[in-house]
Amino acid sequence: MTGTSIAGVDMTPFGEHEVSLPELFAAAAKGAISDAGVSPEEIDQLYLGNTFGGEISQQSHLGPFVASYLGIPGIPVTRVEDACASSSNAFRQAVQSIMAGRADIVLVGGVEKTSPATGLTTSQRTAAFGQAADVDFEQPTGLTFAGAFAMVANRAIHEGLFTEEQMAAVAVKNHYNGSLNPHSHFRNEIEVDDVLESPVVADPLKLYDCCPFTDGASAVVLARDEHATRLSDAPIRVLSSEQATGQTPLHDKPDMAVLDTVAQAGQRAFAAADIAPTDVDVAEVHDCFTPAELLILEALGLMAKGTAGTATVEGQTQLDGTIPVNPSGGLKAKGHPVGATGTAQIVEVANQLWNRCDNRQVDDPMIGITQNLGGDFGSSVVTVFEAP
Amino acid sequence: MTGTSIAGVDMTPFGEHEVSLPELFAAAAKGAISDAGVSPEEIDQLYLGNTFGGEISQQSHLGPFVASYLGIPGIPVTRVEDACASSSNAFRQAVQSIMAGRADIVLVGGVEKTSPATGLTTSQRTAAFGQAADVDFEQPTGLTFAGAFAMVANRAIHEGLFTEEQMAAVAVKNHYNGSLNPHSHFRNEIEVDDVLESPVVADPLKLYDCCPFTDGASAVVLARDEHATRLSDAPIRVLSSEQATGQTPLHDKPDMAVLDTVAQAGQRAFAAADIAPTDVDVAEVHDCFTPAELLILEALGLMAKGTAGTATVEGQTQLDGTIPVNPSGGLKAKGHPVGATGTAQIVEVANQLWNRCDNRQVDDPMIGITQNLGGDFGSSVVTVFEAP
Repeated sequence: MTGTSIAGVDMTPFGEHEVSLPELFAAAAKGAISDAGVSPEEIDQLYLGNTFGGEISQQSHLGPFVASYLGIPGIPVTRVEDACASSSNAFRQAVQSIMAGRADIVLVGGVEKTSPATGLTTSQRTAAFGQAADVDFEQPTGLTFAGAFAMVANRAIHEGLFTEEQMAAVAVKNHYNGSLNPHSHFRNEIEVDDVLESPVVADPLKLYDCCPFTDGASAVVLARDEHATRLSDAPIRVLSSEQATGQTPLHDKPDMAVLDTVAQAGQRAFAAADIAPTDVDVAEVHDCFTPAELLILEALGLMAKGTAGTATVEGQTQLDGTIPVNPSGGLKAKGHPVGATGTAQIVEVANQLWNRCDNRQVDDPMIGITQNLGGDFGSSVVTVFEAP
Repeated sequence: MTGTSIAGVDMTPFGEHEVSLPELFAAAAKGAISDAGVSPEEIDQLYLGNTFGGEISQQSHLGPFVASYLGIPGIPVTRVEDACASSSNAFRQAVQSIMAGRADIVLVGGVEKTSPATGLTTSQRTAAFGQAADVDFEQPTGLTFAGAFAMVANRAIHEGLFTEEQMAAVAVKNHYNGSLNPHSHFRNEIEVDDVLESPVVADPLKLYDCCPFTDGASAVVLARDEHATRLSDAPIRVLSSEQATGQTPLHDKPDMAVLDTVAQAGQRAFAAADIAPTDVDVAEVHDCFTPAELLILEALGLMAKGTAGTATVEGQTQLDGTIPVNPSGGLKAKGHPVGATGTAQIVEVANQLWNRCDNRQVDDPMIGITQNLGGDFGSSVVTVFEAP
């Protein structure tokens, strides 16, 4: 237990945005501040997840710019970079700052621009993403993230863990969920054949197995329990927030298809929250590529090894399934503005636990989790939440 | 009081290095681990300050790579980016993680490569640094950091706060100190005339008013007090670690020559440590350009406004002065590997408080502070230490 709770959340629509990073983040932050009913002057610290501010948006040192843009210069601000897990790790730091007695109310979120609206070519943006892989051993081979996840998927398929058709079922489910989410980048429904017949990106990954380049921001107002109770009638308790790193680079892992980093983060988070995987009612997980969702569900212990593909085809992970996964549409459909993804997962789980997700609402969830992945399996953060 | 203490420190020589960022950081980290007499397996979390890993070294997501290189994959690792204050802010997070009860022993440090050994041109490296200034309002004007600090210096000179000769005295003092420090990038002594006659970089800053492009790493083993006592006969207590941000961009500040960000961080740190500026026996401050040292000493209240220039010329800040400042040689002579600078300041103050600085040792200091600046005055971290 962390002694912290969520008092308010918000996110921008995910897609393409022309505005600056501070302006984009402020849109989400102001929404979360308003949702929590907190005065900006009450915010003690700000944590910001951002991954490619320098590489893509020519803006590093983003923390002070964001604080000034929000009209609260002066407060301590920390930018955290943990590749695609940046804002969930920022959330972990926010939790720690309250546990440390250094803050009562913290604003935490993430922001990123990676879409064509950045003005950079696809090649330039792919190269920026690629810098999260090893500069000595991975980048020189031309390895992109699609390539890394394709290798892992091929190994898993070779071991009989799932099939390409089952991967496609993940995309179909998440596009359907995204079609119900007004903040989702993609809102079109697709069929299994659409996925299987889409252009090959890195075999066995087809275009519809891959998440898009997205712009967006997300924000959460986190408070010490007693302050959260003052701000919100029904704050959402943060039961745990845990990170693990893993052996890098990818080729040094003993088994590429075993997501030990995810498993370790999950075990730590479940133990700290004093829950079992079977207690989880709703999960947002890091489906940057469809096979990742399957492997992550198994690494977390939400599914037995080798069963997630079948379970997905059977509908167990859909909105009315036994364990709804990525009701937001996930990275696959909602989009993946890298530094904003971690807290966007938290925004969705909070809204689900508050029962305010309209026609994508899952049935009265009590325990929700988020799982966010950094790099090619180099780090992972798992966070556990409890409904009011 | 933070309940944390330093058990061991180390840094690489500052200068030019050909090795990778993980290898460079590991050299400092292994030294600090050895200095603390801790087993790597006892480290609960790792915090890493790094600013331009992506922009200059084509390596983001540095945390997991560093942990794997050190042979301790698995542990939580967080990269913090706060421009030139990255590793002092990482240190602040390390303190918080222990205060939160989430760690007993933490490895914290920083690493950066910005020298010609990176293979990038001076122009490319200057542009990377420039990304810490505002992308909409500062970068398009061609403003570099030398330009920003020159504007501030000109305003201060206009107000009669100090003269160019007094600025030069800072460089002379810090080069002398650096000549006594085997880890210093520059070890040559200089005279006031050398500074005044060196090429103008951005009026009134001459070449010898400016710190160099440097590679290097620094690391600290921080521990909960009771663990520090087990590890070290004489741990150094961390009395406080505080950050402030400031209004950005620079032109929005009410008075450019008033370093309110530094003043606020200092006031918070002195209050939390329950000390007065007059209690400080030794200080490492952010002399990226010589006028910064003068303005910072006044903003921290170590000198009255408008007196730091005269005090420097009179020798009050030299090794045997009333308040020795930058005994390491400072950023000016020791060098400024951006993300490594904050914890390098801490390494020097720790070594001073341990009385192990050989011929640059100041006389039996009891209270030491570090002040680290991020961007063009956008953030600052001040940390206060007490000798065993």
